[in-house]
Amino acid sequence: MAGSTFGTLFRLTTWGESHGPAVGCVVDGCPPGIPLTERDIQEDLDRRRPGQSRLTTQRKEEDAVEILSGLFEGVTAGTPISLMVRNADARSKDYSEMKDLYRPSHADYTYQAKYGVRDYRGGGRASYREAVGRVAGGAVARRLLAERGGIEIAAYVLQVSDIRGEVDPAAVTRETVDANIVRCPDPVAAEQMIAAIEQARKDGDSLGGIVEVVARNVPPGLGEPVFDKLTADFARALMSLPAARGFEVGSGFASVLMRGSTHNDPFRMREGRVRTETNFSGGIQGGISNGEDILLRVAFKPTATIMREQQTVTTSGEEVTFRAKGRHDPCVLPRAVAGVEAMVALVLADHLLRQNTLNF
Amino acid sequence: MAGSTFGTLFRLTTWGESHGPAVGCVVDGCPPGIPLTERDIQEDLDRRRPGQSRLTTQRKEEDAVEILSGLFEGVTAGTPISLMVRNADARSKDYSEMKDLYRPSHADYTYQAKYGVRDYRGGGRASYREAVGRVAGGAVARRLLAERGGIEIAAYVLQVSDIRGEVDPAAVTRETVDANIVRCPDPVAAEQMIAAIEQARKDGDSLGGIVEVVARNVPPGLGEPVFDKLTADFARALMSLPAARGFEVGSGFASVLMRGSTHNDPFRMREGRVRTETNFSGGIQGGISNGEDILLRVAFKPTATIMREQQTVTTSGEEVTFRAKGRHDPCVLPRAVAGVEAMVALVLADHLLRQNTLNF
Amino acid sequence: MAGSTFGTLFRLTTWGESHGPAVGCVVDGCPPGIPLTERDIQEDLDRRRPGQSRLTTQRKEEDAVEILSGLFEGVTAGTPISLMVRNADARSKDYSEMKDLYRPSHADYTYQAKYGVRDYRGGGRASYREAVGRVAGGAVARRLLAERGGIEIAAYVLQVSDIRGEVDPAAVTRETVDANIVRCPDPVAAEQMIAAIEQARKDGDSLGGIVEVVARNVPPGLGEPVFDKLTADFARALMSLPAARGFEVGSGFASVLMRGSTHNDPFRMREGRVRTETNFSGGIQGGISNGEDILLRVAFKPTATIMREQQTVTTSGEEVTFRAKGRHDPCVLPRAVAGVEAMVALVLADHLLRQNTLNF
Amino acid sequence: MAGSTFGTLFRLTTWGESHGPAVGCVVDGCPPGIPLTERDIQEDLDRRRPGQSRLTTQRKEEDAVEILSGLFEGVTAGTPISLMVRNADARSKDYSEMKDLYRPSHADYTYQAKYGVRDYRGGGRASYREAVGRVAGGAVARRLLAERGGIEIAAYVLQVSDIRGEVDPAAVTRETVDANIVRCPDPVAAEQMIAAIEQARKDGDSLGGIVEVVARNVPPGLGEPVFDKLTADFARALMSLPAARGFEVGSGFASVLMRGSTHNDPFRMREGRVRTETNFSGGIQGGISNGEDILLRVAFKPTATIMREQQTVTTSGEEVTFRAKGRHDPCVLPRAVAGVEAMVALVLADHLLRQNTLNF
Repeated sequence: MAGSTFGTLFRLTTWGESHGPAVGCVVDGCPPGIPLTERDIQEDLDRRRPGQSRLTTQRKEEDAVEILSGLFEGVTAGTPISLMVRNADARSKDYSEMKDLYRPSHADYTYQAKYGVRDYRGGGRASYREAVGRVAGGAVARRLLAERGGIEIAAYVLQVSDIRGEVDPAAVTRETVDANIVRCPDPVAAEQMIAAIEQARKDGDSLGGIVEVVARNVPPGLGEPVFDKLTADFARALMSLPAARGFEVGSGFASVLMRGSTHNDPFRMREGRVRTETNFSGGIQGGISNGEDILLRVAFKPTATIMREQQTVTTSGEEVTFRAKGRHDPCVLPRAVAGVEAMVALVLADHLLRQNTLNF
Repeated sequence: MAGSTFGTLFRLTTWGESHGPAVGCVVDGCPPGIPLTERDIQEDLDRRRPGQSRLTTQRKEEDAVEILSGLFEGVTAGTPISLMVRNADARSKDYSEMKDLYRPSHADYTYQAKYGVRDYRGGGRASYREAVGRVAGGAVARRLLAERGGIEIAAYVLQVSDIRGEVDPAAVTRETVDANIVRCPDPVAAEQMIAAIEQARKDGDSLGGIVEVVARNVPPGLGEPVFDKLTADFARALMSLPAARGFEVGSGFASVLMRGSTHNDPFRMREGRVRTETNFSGGIQGGISNGEDILLRVAFKPTATIMREQQTVTTSGEEVTFRAKGRHDPCVLPRAVAGVEAMVALVLADHLLRQNTLNF
Repeated sequence: MAGSTFGTLFRLTTWGESHGPAVGCVVDGCPPGIPLTERDIQEDLDRRRPGQSRLTTQRKEEDAVEILSGLFEGVTAGTPISLMVRNADARSKDYSEMKDLYRPSHADYTYQAKYGVRDYRGGGRASYREAVGRVAGGAVARRLLAERGGIEIAAYVLQVSDIRGEVDPAAVTRETVDANIVRCPDPVAAEQMIAAIEQARKDGDSLGGIVEVVARNVPPGLGEPVFDKLTADFARALMSLPAARGFEVGSGFASVLMRGSTHNDPFRMREGRVRTETNFSGGIQGGISNGEDILLRVAFKPTATIMREQQTVTTSGEEVTFRAKGRHDPCVLPRAVAGVEAMVALVLADHLLRQNTLNF
Repeated sequence: MAGSTFGTLFRLTTWGESHGPAVGCVVDGCPPGIPLTERDIQEDLDRRRPGQSRLTTQRKEEDAVEILSGLFEGVTAGTPISLMVRNADARSKDYSEMKDLYRPSHADYTYQAKYGVRDYRGGGRASYREAVGRVAGGAVARRLLAERGGIEIAAYVLQVSDIRGEVDPAAVTRETVDANIVRCPDPVAAEQMIAAIEQARKDGDSLGGIVEVVARNVPPGLGEPVFDKLTADFARALMSLPAARGFEVGSGFASVLMRGSTHNDPFRMREGRVRTETNFSGGIQGGISNGEDILLRVAFKPTATIMREQQTVTTSGEEVTFRAKGRHDPCVLPRAVAGVEAMVALVLADHLLRQNTLNF
């Protein structure tokens, strides 16, 4: 029980089901004096929102955030920041089809097994709607990182199905990411991804992909041996996102095919600082940041909701076939970018605060 | 600071540097009444120990564990279990070569950046010697899982460099894993792996690989939405191991190339239980176990220590070349298996205790 | 930073300043299946609310609670329960007098020293308004305790200034507590207390007192050695309430004057159960419940807000005199009862869940 | 389960039973660069040790501490500090009398109820021997506080039974405390206390008392609203000590009899700093330090072990009489001073690290 809190010093608690009255979060531990407005948060939320482009589900969600506490005269007060987004009224919709069966590769069966009760309307806490709280809290973390550390984070779609973009992580900005609706900064690959996603929708099917994320200007020394290494906390943060199936730092699985003599990053002096010539380490050595760009990747499986007939069982143990109704995302990647950025920001904010305890 | 504790209810704290007086751990939260002997722990420690085969470093480490607390009349008492392994005397060895420079892709530079002081002898806490505490604690978790849940865990080397074994996770046992010194249950691939590792040693180079791990008889319902999902906690646990670069659950990165219609695991009734026909989910849906075998993979980079000349910088900022001395593992995989098993056991023990809070 | 969360498995996070948009809390870890309504929570909130009787401040606060998440079809779903109470519009009020000086024995100076910024309107997080979140969360804990354990908690005013009631803890009920506006179950003492408080108000002064609380039907075995003993967690919980200055369990400070031969509670068999003949231990031995009534006391200092001229300094370091305006509680005790009950319920709910991990 | 860890950033985990192989602790989160020797720790341990004077039990315990990790070249390395004290061989002693019954007002019955198994030899974890780990960890905290903050802590016996010393907290030093064997800095009262304790021993009885503790040079701003207030954390820390029955900060229970107009501490400017004229707040306002001396008191009950016949029950439910054998402390106060100091140091070290996160 009690798994809705993330972080040690910069702590996010999310709450809310997809079809309850509201979703939101509490950010505890944000230092005082950080300028923050609802617009800062809204901007990030709008990137997670459904219906933002023709690629995403057409469900209408306004997702207007309200700051309920923690600000005083435009800056954070050091007290908990409570953020809320009302859910649109969902009463009219008919969820009876989902009430009595377990949708394949959703969390229906496992929630039932765990709790003995479940909110069958739209996935409850397992829905990506829960990420509203993550993205809102992540926006606060991003403001902190920008204000105090000049740290920038940029996530983007690197791959959809077998289409992989060519992207220079050092050059990516939010502008180049948002330049197209699939959020891949390689415009050629982006067009192919968009076409593939639209085809999948026509097929009633879904696609997976890879989101890559870079964090720049991270100072050396963040990360806590041995269980709270940056690597470990990033892995936990990103693998807690719905549909995440794999995680990599730096060279990742590709390192398996390399030899140490190639994989090791030689140290060099550059402008008086210790730097590495290559960055197979992805900015993290021994679990601690080394000042190079942090580079991570997350693999997302194809969306479980498809418009095709599937085999499943009912809650009373009968084998049946099932076909989902309505409109859903054939590929979560374009909207997942916001969630990935938020989780990376939360990890870095927490470790920035934890590291600081050294120099008092 | 303070990152040496893992778990919420079943909590492991490890301590000790590779060249200090001792290494060890404290296990807090183990339920009372579990039979436990030093032999139970020693058996697992011996699989992590260097010098156990011609594949591993020839350093002599006895690694005899001492149980300092937490037992009474042969069973756990519900109180903290303190375990200690004395380090062999390392005073004679000359580490002066490592004192004044940063070994590439080791944690030397990052520890210095973080702490302003570092134990340059053998990597301190960043050494795989720290895993003595993990493996010892994991052995306690394994006893608990076996005793109370009949849960079995088996990790094995799936891949070394480009040699991948063919393994049926459902059939693997500790016996089939330990049948050869590389710990790959596919005997043909094992021979090739052994040859490749020996060749790498001759070349003064190192290899990476993949460890796969299966957990069987895990009851449905383990895992806590939303940040403490099983997926997230396994990822954190395994990515906290030295040299880990990537993590997968079930279909992992391969899911990216699949479509939802293929990837979804259809539900079926089997002997009165809800089962899935395929297991691309790797036993976890929505972050919660579904009763199928849990299947995870970790990618380990090639060992950073190689017997070749490398570029690096000194602590005073001078660029130099460096060549390691002595004998080291050209491939950590055979010994990493013990660490992987331990971490998986720790996660499952913790979640078994957390889930139980439902039915009081 | 980050001190707004209480509990390990049954976790409360409160948020909100007294003059922000709202106050509230998130309860994470409540087991599923507990019937819960807004009325359950409202009932407890109304006992904390100002303006409920002539003894308390006449500020008008409706304190209508809204359940934002965590319920499904009238029962808890095992997911976070988010509760919110809107603050009445406070914009009209003039707080400029408090902006530039530190009120004696309030948290004005310490918040400024800590955060470098403070919400000077009504005390921010240091206000007893923050306890709305505690009382709301405590109401959920009370429902859980009643439903699963039959555990009852009753707090009451034992002493105001030098007037001490004679109360039998075993017989107190919410009805006997709420039978008078000072919430002392001894009707004779209650009348004297009421008169004393009214006199203090006329004097522009304030009074302190003692709240006693009893918990009945607590099973033996709750409490975790050695730092999370019941004694320690109750102490932390109750001493975190505003104005709390002292804490006792069982015989408390009076034990100092006793000898072991008198103070020890002899064990007896009663109806087949191990019981103690006396209860100087207050139901807790070695930090663990022994099945007897748990008996605790909290000393509250006289309210810091008084209607008299006081010496203080301004934020710019000038010594000035100051006299508070408006209407305030001359004695917090009658309203503090709700906060004490809530904190005791939160501790017991958490330990009930923690203990349960034994018998899986 | 799992209650043996204290603190958030400066974390102490204690382990060990009174009659197991050893007792000890792990300190995680101590910043690097703090000079530390075994002598620093031994000095504090010797004040907790039995047999140090004619007032305490004559059991022979050497209590020689061994530092097992966390130091490098004489300073802390930022890594976990593992400390161990071997227990003297206790095999010869006969504990069969304690095996089959529950000693009154000890933890025998509650441990049995909780765990279903207990180490009946000398109280296991409920013994004051567990405090070896606290005192050792506290010694590390004290070194940190002295080194980085110039913070001093002095605990002393204020009262034994009805004999209360007159002590000026501002003037107390370890030297004045250790000037007599009862550790009361009032030499006249000390003599009376000593006589009273010796008389109690002759009577086969035991006495309680009050330990007072002062912390000086604590900077303003420590403590985290709302649950991790200094008041709350001190209360938890001190009430987790064996035999603690009551806790006070500043005016404590005496505040109940005061009026606000007297109790409020007027602010004044002194040498350019904000100070209070009186210190009824005990250095803490709104849960946060205000820069004045922190003043706390703990009430300890009379020792449960007495040399007189008592009523109790056996583990099989038979009512019997029981008389303890051997030699025990008739009053724990002189040795409790070390435990109180340690706990206060641990709380302050943790909050010093937590507060620091503000100014990065």
